Amino acid sequence: MTMSLTEQMTELARQAKSAARDLARLSRAEKDGCLLAMAEALERRAPELEAANALDLEAGGRAGLSTAMLDRLKLDGKRIAGMARGLREVAALPDPVGRQLEERVRPNGLRLQKVTTPIGVIVIIYESRPNVTADAAGLCFKSGNAAILRGGKEALHSNRLIASILVEAGRAQLAGFPAHAIQLVQTPEREAIRELLALTQYVDLCMPRGGEGLIRAVAECSKVPVIKHYKGVCHVFVDAAADLGMAEAIVLNAKCQRPAVCNAMETLLIDRALADGFVPVVARALTAQRVQLRVDAAARAIVERAALDPAPDLREATEQDYYTEYNDLILNVRLVAGLGEAIDHINQYGSAHSDSIVTQDESRARRFLAEVDSAAVYWNASTRFTDGGEFGLGAEIGISTDKIGARGPMGLEELTSYKWLGLGTGQVRR
Amino acid sequence: MTMSLTEQMTELARQAKSAARDLARLSRAEKDGCLLAMAEALERRAPELEAANALDLEAGGRAGLSTAMLDRLKLDGKRIAGMARGLREVAALPDPVGRQLEERVRPNGLRLQKVTTPIGVIVIIYESRPNVTADAAGLCFKSGNAAILRGGKEALHSNRLIASILVEAGRAQLAGFPAHAIQLVQTPEREAIRELLALTQYVDLCMPRGGEGLIRAVAECSKVPVIKHYKGVCHVFVDAAADLGMAEAIVLNAKCQRPAVCNAMETLLIDRALADGFVPVVARALTAQRVQLRVDAAARAIVERAALDPAPDLREATEQDYYTEYNDLILNVRLVAGLGEAIDHINQYGSAHSDSIVTQDESRARRFLAEVDSAAVYWNASTRFTDGGEFGLGAEIGISTDKIGARGPMGLEELTSYKWLGLGTGQVRR
Repeated sequence: MTMSLTEQMTELARQAKSAARDLARLSRAEKDGCLLAMAEALERRAPELEAANALDLEAGGRAGLSTAMLDRLKLDGKRIAGMARGLREVAALPDPVGRQLEERVRPNGLRLQKVTTPIGVIVIIYESRPNVTADAAGLCFKSGNAAILRGGKEALHSNRLIASILVEAGRAQLAGFPAHAIQLVQTPEREAIRELLALTQYVDLCMPRGGEGLIRAVAECSKVPVIKHYKGVCHVFVDAAADLGMAEAIVLNAKCQRPAVCNAMETLLIDRALADGFVPVVARALTAQRVQLRVDAAARAIVERAALDPAPDLREATEQDYYTEYNDLILNVRLVAGLGEAIDHINQYGSAHSDSIVTQDESRARRFLAEVDSAAVYWNASTRFTDGGEFGLGAEIGISTDKIGARGPMGLEELTSYKWLGLGTGQVRR
Repeated sequence: MTMSLTEQMTELARQAKSAARDLARLSRAEKDGCLLAMAEALERRAPELEAANALDLEAGGRAGLSTAMLDRLKLDGKRIAGMARGLREVAALPDPVGRQLEERVRPNGLRLQKVTTPIGVIVIIYESRPNVTADAAGLCFKSGNAAILRGGKEALHSNRLIASILVEAGRAQLAGFPAHAIQLVQTPEREAIRELLALTQYVDLCMPRGGEGLIRAVAECSKVPVIKHYKGVCHVFVDAAADLGMAEAIVLNAKCQRPAVCNAMETLLIDRALADGFVPVVARALTAQRVQLRVDAAARAIVERAALDPAPDLREATEQDYYTEYNDLILNVRLVAGLGEAIDHINQYGSAHSDSIVTQDESRARRFLAEVDSAAVYWNASTRFTDGGEFGLGAEIGISTDKIGARGPMGLEELTSYKWLGLGTGQVRR
């Protein structure tokens, strides 16, 4: 008898919930032992993995995937070693579960302890890179969460084998390894996600990773909490009191060091007071990096007056441009009448991800830090630092621009919840 | 021109978002000054409040509200003084915003600070008690959040006047008081809530308070995060190694001290090993408090053998009873074959609210504390302590059984989010 999609997803989620209870009981040593065994198994079975991946690559080629897509899909020896290294790094991190966040003893002697716990069952939805399967599974496992993984259909052969290698290695390493700790949604139907994200009795959290369209679709249909960021429209504001050399270095880094990532700058705001001097300098530097500039009229006038050689690639910035994540060598440049206008622009058009002020004036910096309503706000530093590794989290499963639950880079600690323990000696309430 | 419901709600939420930005800028002294002025205004305008409340009571009487409902609706001098006292208590609490949770300095010198921030715009939906209007507004205001309040339609006159007294007092006290910091949804249509909770660009959180039906309806329709608890099905487990005198005291307190609240016990689990001795004792004590007992066959046999006088009111417990929040002097009593079965029962039938083990055996207590997946888990203490006041939070806006965001009693700190500040000296990413 075939199960309906609803029945399949319910069974998957129910088994995940049950596995989560077992996972919560594992010691750090047991978890780390499994992670190391998983890493070893991925390396040992690299030839099988490359063969499974070849099936995905072949099908992708037939389906006309772009070269960039095929490259993301590819698993070679280096990427397999990268997955194994990731699992070993997670094993080396402290256990995020059971950490005491707070303790208070009440007048009646009741001792209250706030301690971290796993979240429970986490659904992770992602696109083409199969290495996410190992990364996400490892982080969820270490934090005591059962993972339900839904990768892109173009990576199904690869993802299926990675997941089964991880589970087999866990079971061989540890008799009590919960067989449903790591599960992959294998059915191709899109409807599977909607079914899964309606199961509030089993699923505790969903984390979609990928393009804005995917994330909006997930957030729209989910009945369980979703932690996400839609896009990264990040800003650098060069204040009137900026050190201009520092400003230029930060602008170039934030735009050009890796333009395709979410913490790259999309809009440069410059205080009018220093525009005459600074705009030509920064336009020249950005042009040398082949950055197209989408400017307002005031900035255009200054650039044109400077008659730079080579001439910058100038376009007129539209309202819509200010909302756009280019992920490319394109930058909006807008002049503002001071700090307040910069803050208003960022809170209006930004994505609440990462924004930076360059200034030597501490009181203006403090106001920017307080009033820009973003996950990470910088003073005299590049927006590019919003990243689990750069924050020293050791590993990252994503970046959140939400305000309920984790905000900013999410590592192991951000995959935990907490509970209150009340330790008494017979206390009752009067 | 009349605005459509969608336009009305969008305008309300947009104004709240704008007010939230202004609120985030207020100092602690400014906020506390406003709260004290609001308290004073409520007391000063008590006669007006009682008159507005009389309109609600009259309409409620005509509509056939129960005596209990009318009592909850009533605002008398004592309750008005209670609202004022609540606002003064909130003013006396520390500012939850701007607290540094963590600091780390990276190898490149970048200083990262994790600091608390307001959440933004919070929608609070509640039922008949008009005093919630002042309590919720005060807690949101102190934590820098704009409040959109939706009380029961039966309390509309009272709620409308309370909200306008608070806003008028705030504006008179402080020139920069954001006029839309505290808003009331006045339109009676239910559809208003659905409209409001679709506005993810403006609304950051919804907290429904009230019966399970209301909360499920809100959670079902909301596109914004919801923090809630559906019900409180709380347990006490009397372990084989319990101090029986302590167990009896905790059982009586958890069931009888205030049966109508969410942290009261609904099911008593007893280890079979001590059932013969303990069940008659506890049945006698509960019967003296007029508690109806819904028992399994094994417990029934023991109670009947004991031939208690007066005879307990015994019923057979059904499967459904184990899921039920009675809010009344009714208790399920079930015998279990030890700790594991108790934990499984609680995780299966409970509501993840508050559960307690009574035992002198530390290792069994530790296992219970670790494996019971509830917001508050007690060892040798009554479940009745899950409460903002008892936890020392100073004030409470609700209790959460969710795992994303706050869990357990929610006070001011639980009404905050956080952001990362990155303080640099020109750092760029290599």
